Amino acid sequence: MTVTSHDPRTAAPVSVADETGTAELAAVLRAAEEAASVLATTGPAERRRWLHAAAIALEEHRDELAALADAETALDLPRLTGEVGRAADQLRFYGDVAAEGSYLDVTVDEATETTPRLVRVNRPLGPVAVFGASNFPFAFSVLGNDTGAAIAAGCPVVAKAHEAHVGLSVRQVEIARQAMTSAGAPDGVLQLVVGRDAGAALVRAPQVTAVAFTGSQAGGMALWRLANEREVVIPVYAEMGTVNPVVVTRAGAADAAAVAEVASGFVGSFTLGHGQFCTKPGLLLAPAGAGAADAVAAALRDADPAPVMLSRAIATSVGTGITAMLDAGAELVERVPAPDAANGAPAAVLRAPVSSLKPGSRLLEECFGPVVLVCEYAADDELADTLRTLQGSLAAGLVTGGADDPQARELVRVLSGKAGRVVVDGWPTGVAFTWAQQHGGPWPATTVPAATSVGAHGLARFLRPVAFQSVTDHWLPTEAREDNPWSLPRRVNGRLPEAPQGQR
Amino acid sequence: MTVTSHDPRTAAPVSVADETGTAELAAVLRAAEEAASVLATTGPAERRRWLHAAAIALEEHRDELAALADAETALDLPRLTGEVGRAADQLRFYGDVAAEGSYLDVTVDEATETTPRLVRVNRPLGPVAVFGASNFPFAFSVLGNDTGAAIAAGCPVVAKAHEAHVGLSVRQVEIARQAMTSAGAPDGVLQLVVGRDAGAALVRAPQVTAVAFTGSQAGGMALWRLANEREVVIPVYAEMGTVNPVVVTRAGAADAAAVAEVASGFVGSFTLGHGQFCTKPGLLLAPAGAGAADAVAAALRDADPAPVMLSRAIATSVGTGITAMLDAGAELVERVPAPDAANGAPAAVLRAPVSSLKPGSRLLEECFGPVVLVCEYAADDELADTLRTLQGSLAAGLVTGGADDPQARELVRVLSGKAGRVVVDGWPTGVAFTWAQQHGGPWPATTVPAATSVGAHGLARFLRPVAFQSVTDHWLPTEAREDNPWSLPRRVNGRLPEAPQGQR
Repeated sequence: MTVTSHDPRTAAPVSVADETGTAELAAVLRAAEEAASVLATTGPAERRRWLHAAAIALEEHRDELAALADAETALDLPRLTGEVGRAADQLRFYGDVAAEGSYLDVTVDEATETTPRLVRVNRPLGPVAVFGASNFPFAFSVLGNDTGAAIAAGCPVVAKAHEAHVGLSVRQVEIARQAMTSAGAPDGVLQLVVGRDAGAALVRAPQVTAVAFTGSQAGGMALWRLANEREVVIPVYAEMGTVNPVVVTRAGAADAAAVAEVASGFVGSFTLGHGQFCTKPGLLLAPAGAGAADAVAAALRDADPAPVMLSRAIATSVGTGITAMLDAGAELVERVPAPDAANGAPAAVLRAPVSSLKPGSRLLEECFGPVVLVCEYAADDELADTLRTLQGSLAAGLVTGGADDPQARELVRVLSGKAGRVVVDGWPTGVAFTWAQQHGGPWPATTVPAATSVGAHGLARFLRPVAFQSVTDHWLPTEAREDNPWSLPRRVNGRLPEAPQGQR
Repeated sequence: MTVTSHDPRTAAPVSVADETGTAELAAVLRAAEEAASVLATTGPAERRRWLHAAAIALEEHRDELAALADAETALDLPRLTGEVGRAADQLRFYGDVAAEGSYLDVTVDEATETTPRLVRVNRPLGPVAVFGASNFPFAFSVLGNDTGAAIAAGCPVVAKAHEAHVGLSVRQVEIARQAMTSAGAPDGVLQLVVGRDAGAALVRAPQVTAVAFTGSQAGGMALWRLANEREVVIPVYAEMGTVNPVVVTRAGAADAAAVAEVASGFVGSFTLGHGQFCTKPGLLLAPAGAGAADAVAAALRDADPAPVMLSRAIATSVGTGITAMLDAGAELVERVPAPDAANGAPAAVLRAPVSSLKPGSRLLEECFGPVVLVCEYAADDELADTLRTLQGSLAAGLVTGGADDPQARELVRVLSGKAGRVVVDGWPTGVAFTWAQQHGGPWPATTVPAATSVGAHGLARFLRPVAFQSVTDHWLPTEAREDNPWSLPRRVNGRLPEAPQGQR
């Protein structure tokens, strides 16, 4: 059995890869388990070196990889060339976060008259299964945020190749694995499996200790259910995304020029990557009478997008999504026809009365692709009621009239209860990988709302704390030892962690 | 419908409470939701004051509460009087942890040329349902670690009264609620529901955002499944416990005196609270030929326990547990007959060949109560194989021959992969509430192995991070504001958090 990827523009086959068979999977799992015991004893600075080596190797193959990615995804060379650099920088970032050492959360309570000595440290879970997304074939795929964070945290990764860019998946893992093993990593630090059966077997495998997923609701929920049926249940960190709402205040839509600017920014955001972003703003809530829907329609016509989707299935779902939203009470304001390409899809602006946003309505669910809904609210309490009915989302936006906007403070509060990230006077697409990033959100945007799949806190998903009580120092794992050979920040007796004085 | 508690010694009824009906539950949930919006804006120092007020009130009612607890649990007055003090100190501790402010994890990335300004803070989830345990009617019940951590984190609590100490549950909530509202807390900060139907309805209620549970596997798993069937799935932090293994090294059992000391310590630990501790050591793995099983039997005879269990069901399960273990290949070494009391139960030491500890065996499951299994290992690899087959547990112990024990380092490593806490030359019963505590462990000891139900990190269960991107400062929640009015530690641009200079 093989998996074949196709050019979204022409439907021509691009890459073919053999599915991973049972015996091969068993060998992969054995190697991952062996690597896990090695990684559990490596220092974070050592894993940082591996990740930096992988980043350099990615950059060295930038043009080759971007070209292959463009053939498999049609996301266009300039964007894909840039994304290789982003993916490389992400790998460096997670390595740097590990080396900083706070992720281990070393906490020491010295013995008292009534309590024993306790040292608590985060330990790596073991092999992690990574299921990447098709819409970011570098930044959120086999070498994306999940893989970088897992290896940084000390967990080997078994990635599942994405079927839509199977050739690129194979090639990226080859390149990164070669670079990391040359830098001293064990063979099992990063491996790939191909095929849906192998992916499901991975989630069921006793050796696998956590699953990270980026993609559709259907895919993420299926893995979550599968993991919950295991004898030893493991966490599934599925980042799925939903409708990311953007609210425009009255002051933010004060005149026609302001509305036109909002519309233009909105169109720019929701057509990025042909609308295939998990942070795509899918719903614009604008004040009644501002003409927002017509302005968005005009801006969409100006933008004149020609969406070519990542797969035939996604392209088809754009059309069926529009139909379902029309059936649910929306009306069409503008529809840009699909371009002449194998996976061409339309782009569309729909409008619906805010009263139609009722729990259970199709209008409250994501339509992946360049399709958006514009609703007009009359009074603040109508807006508040509507926001309450929305599903949890990764991000939420607010367009204001500036620092004295009377609606803004309360809307920031309400939106922060609905999303993992609140963006003011900007658009939700674009997710910086930094210390303060939160790329997550309430169920069903993710399966674990306390987790983030981007940013420094992403390592926490792959760790489990262990307390060592009265354990003789030289029997402790290195990160828990009193002489602190890795120079880690340590919280001692509840005092705020301090970096150790110099290297020891 | 009412719930009645009974004296474990005599079976006489002690307390009667009305079950919470549908209308009453709706009012409870409304009050909890209202309280949640109040708590979300209170500073941690304010909630610390409420928790300290509750602690003082508990202590003021120490004798009354201990007497009521003894009537409902038969855990004896001295232990219960001490436990009131422990519960009060726990409430203070969680308040202090909140006030220290690290739990909010304030992280600021200033804007750069390519990335926006981001502030990430932990926000309280909302109302939390707490299901306490019967075996610690103060420390792990309606005012226990879960309630203290949730309120400290800014979440109102709806506790379910434990049926075995329903009178004490009602009284504790009355006392603490009165004290906290007098200190300025809203009415809904802490409420109680009575009855199984109300408990299940709580887990299903849309207003409830997380569940904390301490108790049996069956109970914890039932709540976890219930929560997973919700439209919006919520986390269930169930701390259930399993068999906590203790390994004795060859050097730790060097001569008869050493073995007698181990046996005496082991008996002291597994008969504490009549063996009704989730950290009870249930399995002793001792070197072959040391006579450990006979020594434990002798120590048990000397201890002469008279176990009176918390409920008739638990008392019955001790006998059926012994029978099931015998059926699974264990043999009886010693059995102390049940005392003459309504809930009297036997205590027992069983022995089995280490080869009988195979996956799926009843011998690998917990027998709640003063029942233990002793197994003898011959070679180190036999011991290693056996440890691999064990379920995850809250704690694991190791008895050594001192700092040069050749087996110890590797055993600490292996046990740390199986437990949330590793104890050397001590016993697992006894869980200090400090910064470095980890009271959790791999599935199925808990449903969320990354979480702890005791210690400073316990607050993390009831929080969700939100990133604020380019949000005007005066629209941010107080904890995210640049002037830092609550004097919180902040990580800025990735630098290790520092406490602010003085109070502002």
